[in-house]
Amino acid sequence: MNRMNQPFAFDADTEWETAGEGIRRKILTYNPQVMMVRVAFEAGAIGVAHSHPHIQCSLVEEGVFDITIAGRTERLKSGDSFLVPSNAVHGAVAVEAGVLLDVFTPMREDFVAAER
Amino acid sequence: MNRMNQPFAFDADTEWETAGEGIRRKILTYNPQVMMVRVAFEAGAIGVAHSHPHIQCSLVEEGVFDITIAGRTERLKSGDSFLVPSNAVHGAVAVEAGVLLDVFTPMREDFVAAER
Repeated sequence: MNRMNQPFAFDADTEWETAGEGIRRKILTYNPQVMMVRVAFEAGAIGVAHSHPHIQCSLVEEGVFDITIAGRTERLKSGDSFLVPSNAVHGAVAVEAGVLLDVFTPMREDFVAAER
Repeated sequence: MNRMNQPFAFDADTEWETAGEGIRRKILTYNPQVMMVRVAFEAGAIGVAHSHPHIQCSLVEEGVFDITIAGRTERLKSGDSFLVPSNAVHGAVAVEAGVLLDVFTPMREDFVAAER
């Protein structure tokens, strides 16, 4: 479902999609400027180091993650948050199963290309 | 603590501040373009209708809220999300005690003015 510019997005209407080995994501609310995405990791799942021009900020909703941003790694748990500058290389390792809430500005066009 | 541009923000280092009757907030990670803020509501607390030029997207982390955006009200629970366009009037009523994760683009300069 294309939720572009919709004011409300209900969890029950939103499907998980595979986003890597042991990783699933749900696209939440978005418009061209900003997009929220929930990402669920099985224990040990690895969000491989990558970069994108979008600024990303993320909250650890559940679990424990080792997050690396531009060469610095920290262990984060529920309630901790992080910020990825434009084009900074970053990655995640789920030390325990968990969930990240990722927010991108501008939106990730590549995440919805398949929906069109 | 001024966390502008810091890549990591730890929950344990972050204090709650009063943001209205029955409402507290914690500023999480931010840079000039984006800011994450956790907002905790007691049952019945009211986020009075207001507007701002910043685009806002929010996740219901916990609880049940009646959210009004530009005259439309929906009841949201954990995992639901919403999007507030620039300058749209919006408000929240905590039907049950709960927590919102608000993200603003650009950052809310007014939220950190007191820290400077």
